[in-house]
Parts: sequence; C-alpha cells; structure tokens
Amino acid sequence: MTVHDQGAALPGPRFTIDREAPLHLDCGVDLAPVTIAYQTYGRLNADRSNAILLCHALTGDQYVADPNPVTGKPGWWQPLVGPGCIFDTDRYFLICSNVLGGCMGSTGPSSINPDTGRPWGLTFPVITIADMVRAQIRLIDHLGIDQLFSVIGGSMGGMQVLEWAAHFPHRVFSAVPIASAARHSAQNIAFGEVGRQAVIADPDWCRGDYLNEGKMPHNGLAVARMAAHITYLSEAALHRKFGRNLQGRSLTYGFDADFQVESYLRYQGSSFVERFDANSYLYITRAMDYFDLAADHGGTLANAFRGTRVRFCVVSFTSDWLFPTEESRAVVRALNAVAANVSFVEVESDKGHDAFLLDEPEFHATLQGFLNGAAAHRGLPGGGRS
Amino acid sequence: MTVHDQGAALPGPRFTIDREAPLHLDCGVDLAPVTIAYQTYGRLNADRSNAILLCHALTGDQYVADPNPVTGKPGWWQPLVGPGCIFDTDRYFLICSNVLGGCMGSTGPSSINPDTGRPWGLTFPVITIADMVRAQIRLIDHLGIDQLFSVIGGSMGGMQVLEWAAHFPHRVFSAVPIASAARHSAQNIAFGEVGRQAVIADPDWCRGDYLNEGKMPHNGLAVARMAAHITYLSEAALHRKFGRNLQGRSLTYGFDADFQVESYLRYQGSSFVERFDANSYLYITRAMDYFDLAADHGGTLANAFRGTRVRFCVVSFTSDWLFPTEESRAVVRALNAVAANVSFVEVESDKGHDAFLLDEPEFHATLQGFLNGAAAHRGLPGGGRS
Repeated sequence: MTVHDQGAALPGPRFTIDREAPLHLDCGVDLAPVTIAYQTYGRLNADRSNAILLCHALTGDQYVADPNPVTGKPGWWQPLVGPGCIFDTDRYFLICSNVLGGCMGSTGPSSINPDTGRPWGLTFPVITIADMVRAQIRLIDHLGIDQLFSVIGGSMGGMQVLEWAAHFPHRVFSAVPIASAARHSAQNIAFGEVGRQAVIADPDWCRGDYLNEGKMPHNGLAVARMAAHITYLSEAALHRKFGRNLQGRSLTYGFDADFQVESYLRYQGSSFVERFDANSYLYITRAMDYFDLAADHGGTLANAFRGTRVRFCVVSFTSDWLFPTEESRAVVRALNAVAANVSFVEVESDKGHDAFLLDEPEFHATLQGFLNGAAAHRGLPGGGRS
Repeated sequence: MTVHDQGAALPGPRFTIDREAPLHLDCGVDLAPVTIAYQTYGRLNADRSNAILLCHALTGDQYVADPNPVTGKPGWWQPLVGPGCIFDTDRYFLICSNVLGGCMGSTGPSSINPDTGRPWGLTFPVITIADMVRAQIRLIDHLGIDQLFSVIGGSMGGMQVLEWAAHFPHRVFSAVPIASAARHSAQNIAFGEVGRQAVIADPDWCRGDYLNEGKMPHNGLAVARMAAHITYLSEAALHRKFGRNLQGRSLTYGFDADFQVESYLRYQGSSFVERFDANSYLYITRAMDYFDLAADHGGTLANAFRGTRVRFCVVSFTSDWLFPTEESRAVVRALNAVAANVSFVEVESDKGHDAFLLDEPEFHATLQGFLNGAAAHRGLPGGGRS
C-alpha cells in the first residue's frame, strides 16, 4: 500500500462537505468536495452535551485510541481513552478527525482532485489552522452537536483548540491547549522550513508531482522527520535515553550509525515515510507557520478572547523547548487580561515537547481534575468525581 | 572555481608532513603526505615564547584576520587581531591552520590522493579531534615552537584546545576553550547525524564520489547547513532579528519564503555550499561526534588534566543551547578536581552559540584580561597592561 491510496482505504467513518456548500479557505479558495475522516469513542448523550473533540498534532491522526491501521501501533492517546479513563468513554463522546490537508483519509494534497482525476499535489490550496477548524465545525454540525463540552489537543492540536475558542466561543464549553502557542515562533518557522527544504531537495519529490510520477521523496522526508524529532525531545531525555552509548562495542571510524541516538533517529525517519505523505508534511507545517492568533486580532492576543465564557486549562512542560512555557504564559496573560476563566499548569518534566504523548502523571492528573470540574459545571452526569 | 580545486589554489603558506614520518591517526592509519595550510599574524619573538594557536570551528578556516579568499568576507575574528587589539600583533605571533579533513588547503577528503591521482572521497580515513591536534603539533614543531603561549578556540576549536591541554600539556602555557565541551552530547550527535543524512540523501553526493562524477551535493549540504545554523542562534536572537516578519506585504499562501527567517536560512544554505566541501562536512562533524575526553581517560574527565600546569580560562554564553554552560562547568569541575589554575566566565548574552564570533564586550574583556595576566606570568614584554 502506498501513501497515495492509503487514505481512501483506511477504516472509519467519513463525512463529506459537498459542492453545494464548499469550505471557504483563508487563501480565498472555495474547496469542495472535502472528505473528513474521523473516529469516535463512547456515545453522544441525549442532550448532545458530552462531546469532546480531540485535535491531533502535525503527524498524528484520528486513531486516538485504536491500533493505528497503518503502523499497527497503539493510538496516540490510547491509555487515556476508555471506560473509567481520563477520557471516560462511559461519560464522554470523543471525536477526532484527521486534519484538512492530512493523509489519513481527509482531503489533502495526496487526495484525488475529482476535477482532474489526479492527485492534487501542489495544486492543493495552502491551508491554515483556521481552515482545519472550519472543517471540524462542519463535522460537528453534521454530528448534530451545537456545543462541544471540550476541545483538547497538544502542539498543533493546541493551536486548533485556541482557534476554536477564539473564533467559535459559543461552540465550546471548555478548551485545553497543551504544549502549544498562539503563534509559531521564528525558531519554529526555521525548523519548519528546514523540513520543507529537505523534502523539496529530494529529486523524487518531482516538484510536488511525485504521485503522478510514481516516485516517493522518502529520503528527503526522512531527513525532515529526523530534524523535527530532535525538537520533540529534550536534551536531558536524549541524554538519559542514549547518552553517547554505542551500537556496537567500539567506534567503527566510518559513517554507519555508531551511536544509538543515530540509529534511533534513522529509524524515526525511515518508519515515518511509510505512513506519511510528503506534501501533507509541507502543507501542515505551513499551516503551523502561518498561525498567529494575535495578528488575526489587530496584534493583541487578548482581543481574540474578549468576552469569552470558555473555561480554559493551559498546560506546558518545563523541558519543552519547541513550545516553551513562555508561549503558554502569553496565552494565559491574554486570557487573564479579559478576565477569562483559566487555570494554568506548567508540568515538571524532562521529556521535552513529546511529554504530552507520554506517561506524565502530573499532566494526567491535571487533565482529569479539569475535566471533572468542567463536567460538574456543565451538569454532566457523574461530574465532580475525582 | 569548484570546491574540488579550491584548497590548492588558496593563498598562504603550506607545511607538509611527508612519507618519512606519517601522521598516525586514531583509526590506525598512517597518513602521508599531509598538507597543512595555515596563516600567521605578527612575529615570533626571539625566545619563541609569544605564539598563540587559534583553532577554528567546524566551518571556519585559517583566515582569522584576512578577507576570506573564497567569500571575500572579513576573517572570523578579524576585529580581534591587529596592533593594539586583543590578539595584539605587536606582541603575539598568531597561528591558525585549516584542520586536517578540511577543504581550505589542508589535506581532506576533497584532496587528491597521490597514490591514485583522484580525490580521496570516502576512502579518506575518518579523523578525530586528536588527529587534528597531532597535525597542529607537527606544524608547531616545524615552526620551531616548543611551547605555545596560548591555544584558543570556540566550539570545535575549543575541543582542540582541550585536547591540546590534555595530551600535550608541556606544549601549552595557557588554554582558552570557548563555547565548547569535553564531549559531544547526544543532542549534538543527533544534529550532526541529521546534517550527514541530508548530504547522503542527495543523489548528487554519489556515495561520496561526487568529485569524480563531476557533481556536487549542493541541495543536501544546504539543508545540513540550514539545520545546523538554527542551532548556532538562540530563540531570542531569531526572535529579535526576524520574529514573524514577512518578506513581502502579506502571506502568499505558497511555499516560497514568506517569512524573513526562511529567506535568511535559505541564504545561509546556498552561500555555504559555495565555500565548503560536502565530504569535509561529514568528516569534521564525525570528528566532533567522536570527541569524548573523559572516555579517553578511563571515564573520568579530571584524569585528562591531572598534574597540569596549564592556565585555563573557560568561557560559555548563557543562551548557547548547542554547547550549554553546563558543558563548560563540567570542564571547570574537572579542572578544579585536579587543582588546576582555572578561571571561568559565563558571559551573559542572548546571541546563542555564535556569540563567540560576535561583538560581545564582556567576552572580549574576559579574553583581554586573561591574556594580559597570562602574558605577565609568562614574562612576555608588555605583559600586564590592560
């Protein structure tokens, strides 16, 4: 199975935005049809008040709590989802959709453009975080949900959370942006650009037309992933995990992977290309670069949240240098400036940005506590237990 | 002029290690002939006691204080060298040699292997920081210098400084490792590996044989440089310099360089490939990865310096996340453990790793003060002025 036809063949429900009401994108294009692939867990209650939208990160997907159909690995938040879990499927109705621009069933650059019968490639319009959220709104409408109980996500997922709260505050009761930011920093953009240039430098990228050319820019995409992966970990985590440990018994005086950290990175690169589309990588990193919630509100972040009734829980991790605590603090300051209901937890962790995907008891306790409190306020059955 | 023949044509003196006394390398190879290209500034005094060896960083070269013959830009420490300057050419005899493995006139993978008449490419032996220093020792011998007054360098130059002090303490009166470390960390190795894989992924690298194939892996090397360049700057410096400033008046909704930081990085990549050999990049980053002074001394860094009479000045920069202060502190702790003469200055700077190449008054005052004090102890004329 190639990434090309991967999306269409994947299990799970689909929702399609049709040509009668196309998706209006920030770039000016009206896009249709648009397919959104999603997963749900638990059941929507009678008054449709228990839905939580989980927003995935750059290379995540809708398989939050299923074995991933491409990799066979557990879902990215699988330990958090189930009866009695933090995302209690006896209590909540969980939704996660593959982002617009993705490659796991939602419409993106690897999808077939119905007007040409060929993959979109670089003719796909450049999308934004707001566009991703607009597609999610359509899905939520389709599911008959007026207001989400919560919208929750880490990293790029957190950007979507902030976008939801800023632009559709009446559609969200609570919001949990984790290890995220209200804008991509210069350093973030710089790393994004390195990844894109690594892909673009690969001759097998074929100026974006590799699917039509029967090629795959695996080498370039693997390098992009390797560079990005370093940014997901802290120096301390890399040191603890690998230090300068060798693969073999001694240095080889060559360019094979002498050090375990090299071998690990190579594996991260080579396994990534089996599951991800290179053009999706370009489009989604671009969407992150473009994200700047303050700029969308006259340069003042607080304006994005003025009058909000959304309850916020902002979470950061001490060793996250990709989305450092300072970025979360900027969000909290903006929320405080408009007297929003916000709690902020900086979780002590040496695991870096990836901590939000890992076993971090303090983070999990924070999520649990916030959800219980919010559920009580929302009047959800069982709310308030801890 | 291609990088291929660049080295041989460059101005400045050369010293050659001939086949009668080859250079014994850590990998076991006896290498000869070995050419070392170098520059000197000032004059060696009568008792040959005023020589300072300046050690360049990964992509630096011997042109410390001349306009660089390839780029036309000023030497990398040009403002520090001259009559009355910190490296006072009326007082000191300054030497800087292109490292073994380099591409600016010293023998490296782009040099012609005299046994085959073709560029070495990947048949060049893998070298280490210790090998670079062994070549420098030969040069110093050739220049008739028993003991250097000082050996000074930043980043990889600092690794050479530590290697000099550890293995040839009787040949060094004082040593100044700047923004450096006694080992490459797991994160450093990880970034090194990303750069190498970017080069190796380029089909024009031709399995290392690009010079014989008439090609150049410019795209891969540019990506490597872009990734590395991010690590040389602090997030604060990137934010101050570029923030989210656009190139044009608005977002283009495309993959051109919308943001100034993207354009800057692309320029860093494309200009680098005009002056640097891709295989040299592989070999020199490998040498840095292999550097681990403690491992060479039974796992205890202090053992590297036991009984030393060298006077040390260790310098780090607060915002350097590539060679963070903690790495310098580890060196200082080791030196203290053997009661060495060491001063340590952590310079407050938000410029990141590159601060050692920039206008940093506190850093320059530190260098000046240390050199004056050491010169007085060494009994150099004029020593002690400030």
